[in-house]
Amino acid sequence: MTKEVTLKHYIQGEVKLSDFAIVDKTLSALQESEVLVKNNWMSVDPYMRGRMIDRKSYIPPFQLKQALEGSAVGIVQESKSQRYQKGDMVLSMKGWREAFIANERELIKLPARAHEEDYLGVMGMPGMTAYTGLLKIGKPKEGECVFVSAASGAVGSLVCQIAKLKGCKVIASVGSDEKVKWLKEVLGVDEAFNYKKHPDLNSILKKVAANGIDVYFENVGGKHLEAAINHMNAHGRIVVCGMISQYNLDHPEPGPTNLAQIIGKRLLLKGFIVSDYDDVKPEFYTQMDKWLETGKVHYKTHVYQGIDKAPEAFINLFKGENIGKMLVKL
Amino acid sequence: MTKEVTLKHYIQGEVKLSDFAIVDKTLSALQESEVLVKNNWMSVDPYMRGRMIDRKSYIPPFQLKQALEGSAVGIVQESKSQRYQKGDMVLSMKGWREAFIANERELIKLPARAHEEDYLGVMGMPGMTAYTGLLKIGKPKEGECVFVSAASGAVGSLVCQIAKLKGCKVIASVGSDEKVKWLKEVLGVDEAFNYKKHPDLNSILKKVAANGIDVYFENVGGKHLEAAINHMNAHGRIVVCGMISQYNLDHPEPGPTNLAQIIGKRLLLKGFIVSDYDDVKPEFYTQMDKWLETGKVHYKTHVYQGIDKAPEAFINLFKGENIGKMLVKL
Repeated sequence: MTKEVTLKHYIQGEVKLSDFAIVDKTLSALQESEVLVKNNWMSVDPYMRGRMIDRKSYIPPFQLKQALEGSAVGIVQESKSQRYQKGDMVLSMKGWREAFIANERELIKLPARAHEEDYLGVMGMPGMTAYTGLLKIGKPKEGECVFVSAASGAVGSLVCQIAKLKGCKVIASVGSDEKVKWLKEVLGVDEAFNYKKHPDLNSILKKVAANGIDVYFENVGGKHLEAAINHMNAHGRIVVCGMISQYNLDHPEPGPTNLAQIIGKRLLLKGFIVSDYDDVKPEFYTQMDKWLETGKVHYKTHVYQGIDKAPEAFINLFKGENIGKMLVKL
Repeated sequence: MTKEVTLKHYIQGEVKLSDFAIVDKTLSALQESEVLVKNNWMSVDPYMRGRMIDRKSYIPPFQLKQALEGSAVGIVQESKSQRYQKGDMVLSMKGWREAFIANERELIKLPARAHEEDYLGVMGMPGMTAYTGLLKIGKPKEGECVFVSAASGAVGSLVCQIAKLKGCKVIASVGSDEKVKWLKEVLGVDEAFNYKKHPDLNSILKKVAANGIDVYFENVGGKHLEAAINHMNAHGRIVVCGMISQYNLDHPEPGPTNLAQIIGKRLLLKGFIVSDYDDVKPEFYTQMDKWLETGKVHYKTHVYQGIDKAPEAFINLFKGENIGKMLVKL
């Protein structure tokens, strides 16, 4: 008997605890090439919100009344696969469940020495997203100014640090004074502000980005995008990674009024999905491993305990509760 | 004595005839290396609207009470330059005036056999804009769908034809039935519609671009951009050349509500200014010359007579009066 989280119906507007169900499931017997895994950690990520809407997108919507999906790290309990044995640590997309049976092809074996939850954060999808988006799309040059929104999140906090490692000036927007403090004192960003205290984003950017922004790493959308465009330098690049301010809206919000600046400033805006960049993975793992080993990159996790808490963890992502990676320990 | 057009004040909102003055000017005597040119043709282009606003941009605002600037083709009348002699045909940025004196460095000599007004249109800045924007930024592949707004204008009509020459399906939005007819019957686009008869752009695009849009050549902005984003295919490219719907607004208009689609569809939006692409010029001239000689590219001009009509010609650009290049014959 194992517990799984399912979605009762597709969701418009704000996500509520009552949209989810926690259900018991009996796992069947192992077939040839199958493996039984007990999850230790599961990830909740903002992109999952898109799968809770019934529409065509780059990834299909979640199936109602079936276990949700997402990254998870677990330990093999039983194996009828040649490739896996009891005790192996594996990464899968079989999150939102305490345990599962999967074909060997649905798993990725992790190194035995791995710090397991890292593979859901700094060494996982969020790390790859930060690395790829900033370096392969934003392409900041030394001395340029990089502006990051949602800068204390799993992705944003890594973007800030990679930009600093590349010799950029880094400006961070976050939603609390505690986050400002962490970014300035631990991650070493040049400027950080609490946007809730600066509703006029144009004024604060004018002050902290007096020489303009060369790369904007967009995690938020809406007013953040508009203000960033106003302060972009000529030939600036906007890496469109997420727009978390838009995902829970009941009705779509009007967009920036200043898009005509894209022309005169010759701006690039590029949306991306990290799974399109698998060729970058070897470089990313090598580089991030080195940065971690030499203490060049810091990270935090915000952990909920038990699968029953997974919906709450997910919902609180959109309230900006987490500093660093939001995780559920199973 | 020569006539020039000047601007009385910077302009917000719709441009009026009374914003301009036609003034008489006495030309001084020629100095060493200077040339006296009588203009035969001058260009009015939408981008000039941006120079009528007092703001920092990629090109400085027009100087008030001085002759405006823009492309012009004229004939050398007198020369104290080694490089030019009487009768030479020259291209300059000294439009909006009947005649002028300039240093030899401010002129470009045109080939003697040239069809002079072509250098303000198909072989000039608008031609380069269409060629560069479509092929160097949009990069359409054979069989892809290219959507062009303001498709009967100087730039749009060339984008349509270059896209057809590259084997694309071409969909055109224009503002009159006469333009629809020209685009379909003469330029050979696959689909063209009069947006004034289809205020619900989403419906018409759903019909004419049933398989989605791969490249959107953006000349208009506003509702056209929003509808295009809704119909873009994954990995689509939006070449942001102009947003003519926005230039005369008193108050900025809210932008598209659907920018979050940039992420899931991995869209590229790229603003550009053709003068950044001078390295493309040799290729452009060679190719366009060949297309013109073999009758592969068609164009039209919409001509006003006399410098007194230049402000009216400019104003009517924004009313979509022209099919093809708007010009003033001096």
